Amino acid sequence: KQIILLPGDGIGKEIIESAKYVLNTVASEFGHRFTFHSHAIGGDAIDQYGTPLPEDTINACLNADAILLGAVGGPKWEGLPGNIRPEQGLLGIRKKLGLFANLRPIQGFAPLLHASPLKEEVVNGSDILIIRELTGGLYFGKPSERINEGKAVVDTLYYEREEMERIVEKAFESARIRRKHLTSVDKANVLESSRLWREVVNEKSKDYPDVTVEHMLVDAAAMKLITSPTQFDVIVTENLFGDILSDEASVLTGSLGMLPSASIRADGVGLYEPVHGSAPDIAGKGIANPLGMILSAALMLRHSLQMEEEANEIEEAVLACLEQGYHTADLSVKNGKQVGTKEMTEAVVENLT
Amino acid sequence: KQIILLPGDGIGKEIIESAKYVLNTVASEFGHRFTFHSHAIGGDAIDQYGTPLPEDTINACLNADAILLGAVGGPKWEGLPGNIRPEQGLLGIRKKLGLFANLRPIQGFAPLLHASPLKEEVVNGSDILIIRELTGGLYFGKPSERINEGKAVVDTLYYEREEMERIVEKAFESARIRRKHLTSVDKANVLESSRLWREVVNEKSKDYPDVTVEHMLVDAAAMKLITSPTQFDVIVTENLFGDILSDEASVLTGSLGMLPSASIRADGVGLYEPVHGSAPDIAGKGIANPLGMILSAALMLRHSLQMEEEANEIEEAVLACLEQGYHTADLSVKNGKQVGTKEMTEAVVENLT
Ligand SMILES: CC(C)[C@H](C(=O)O)[C@@H](O)C(=O)O
Ligand SMILES: CC(C)[C@H](C(=O)O)[C@@H](O)C(=O)O
Repeated sequence: KQIILLPGDGIGKEIIESAKYVLNTVASEFGHRFTFHSHAIGGDAIDQYGTPLPEDTINACLNADAILLGAVGGPKWEGLPGNIRPEQGLLGIRKKLGLFANLRPIQGFAPLLHASPLKEEVVNGSDILIIRELTGGLYFGKPSERINEGKAVVDTLYYEREEMERIVEKAFESARIRRKHLTSVDKANVLESSRLWREVVNEKSKDYPDVTVEHMLVDAAAMKLITSPTQFDVIVTENLFGDILSDEASVLTGSLGMLPSASIRADGVGLYEPVHGSAPDIAGKGIANPLGMILSAALMLRHSLQMEEEANEIEEAVLACLEQGYHTADLSVKNGKQVGTKEMTEAVVENLT
Repeated sequence: KQIILLPGDGIGKEIIESAKYVLNTVASEFGHRFTFHSHAIGGDAIDQYGTPLPEDTINACLNADAILLGAVGGPKWEGLPGNIRPEQGLLGIRKKLGLFANLRPIQGFAPLLHASPLKEEVVNGSDILIIRELTGGLYFGKPSERINEGKAVVDTLYYEREEMERIVEKAFESARIRRKHLTSVDKANVLESSRLWREVVNEKSKDYPDVTVEHMLVDAAAMKLITSPTQFDVIVTENLFGDILSDEASVLTGSLGMLPSASIRADGVGLYEPVHGSAPDIAGKGIANPLGMILSAALMLRHSLQMEEEANEIEEAVLACLEQGYHTADLSVKNGKQVGTKEMTEAVVENLT
């Protein structure tokens, strides 16, 4: 299996090594062969090639079975013009590969729950999968420009019905193998695109009579995620609402540094990255938390390589580490042992085998 | 002073009576004369006149010094087509009157803080003013329609530079008389409108050297509101981001039923309404919490009628009630006395005088 590594910026380089090490261990245990090739993206690619997404990186990704990405961005590249900013590498690769479905599982880890900003009785037991449409909407609609001699500006929220259909189907499929509850989030009292979205959800729901569907306005969803996170199973929404709500949800369980994400398309090819950023302040110090990256590698095994058992084994090993008290500087665990990136990775590997 | 009452739907009718009673008490204490006229809006107006915003209501509001609104909406009107939905009354009156600045103060009330979903050490001391642009952006941009024979759909995020300038100025003015910290929220790494927004904020900031400005992406803001609400003073943002973030923020302190809002324009005319909805499930039972409405009346005195002292007196009376243990069914107070809408209003009036 051909895996492309895009370490990117900041702590990306360190944590991607951790994922590679864990994957190699799993490969030898289960008799798989993974080949890894690294390519530049983001600020790193700007520094080397003057563009956040070199052709060479795109071509490598187009031929990959799966892609692991560390993180992109940092203050170093903040003054640059819009089209050569590190984030453009990420937006570009999503669009070029057609990675329309962003899966963000949000789950509490018992040993970390005490770090949640929410009361334990509110957050305990929450287990949410946010499915965000990733290649449409305001992110890519045209026009997106100054008009009227700079006196006004316009961005465009554009969706094709088919783009809605495929993400909504994905969401129903995901709900079906979970707790069979789907919350569709929109702003149908204001946006025409949301009214079409709601129609598509209602239509598709006929094919999934076993899944209960609830429509929720995005403002209400932003409230309910905090007041009753346990009421959600799968949430599906368009690109920008998904950006906001998935980040909001990511802090609920107190374990932002642990959360993985998958950006996939219908044939299973996908890009996997931790939810946290490039953390330039701690880059190069060997103290970054590799677990979000390692859990992203587990998602890759599950969604792109059909290796469910292997994915589960990694997830169990990570949980075992936490239960043994291992934690990096960003987490705190009662009576824990604080370790660096390498030792944390070693601990995961030991729990694997 | 000419005050228009728009009771609207659900509990709106009950709580608006509470506000009127409190205002009349304040008027006789301070020697003011308020005249009140009621008009229909929302579902109530649909039932009576077939439209959520009758001409007569618009005309009355155009001649008012200030407007108090109860709430609009309810399941009864949910099947109706987009343009005769109760919410259209609210959107319509905002636009017709040019109420471009939505002020949403979010504050904890010590006797209620225990009801917050957040840990007390996280939420304690938070005191945020969200200033949301209310008459532009995706809410009103054209086109907003199906295209390509219904196979696609488009909504338009349109802003004029001047619309940004006036709301940003309002935000700086507000920050100046508070803790002098302004967080401007946008999505400048994706949207052209956000990049113009950021330019406008940076330009205006030169006129307010005493106010520190921070730019924050909307996804980051959605996280930080939960993890460190006390880091915010004034937040300013465009219409849709403001809709989402202000609702998110409204549940942080555990006192959603207490929160007021103001929608104003440059000359001071404004519409004041509680943040909570029409609560159709408890309408007509006499148990609705009138405090969000009463505090909205206080905001009206402050922002539209320049009666700061009178506004403070109402706010202090409300806090005194809570400290005396009075609460409605939606709140809980340790060793409290649960009362209905009328008794709660009486309690406020008694604390006034
Ligand atoms: C970096 C940025 C453009 C990106 C987005 O908004 O999609 C990020 O916030 C994310 O959620 O992956
Ligand atoms: C009812 C709805 C159209 C409205 C909005 O989105 O502005 C409401 O959510 C609000 O925040 O006042």
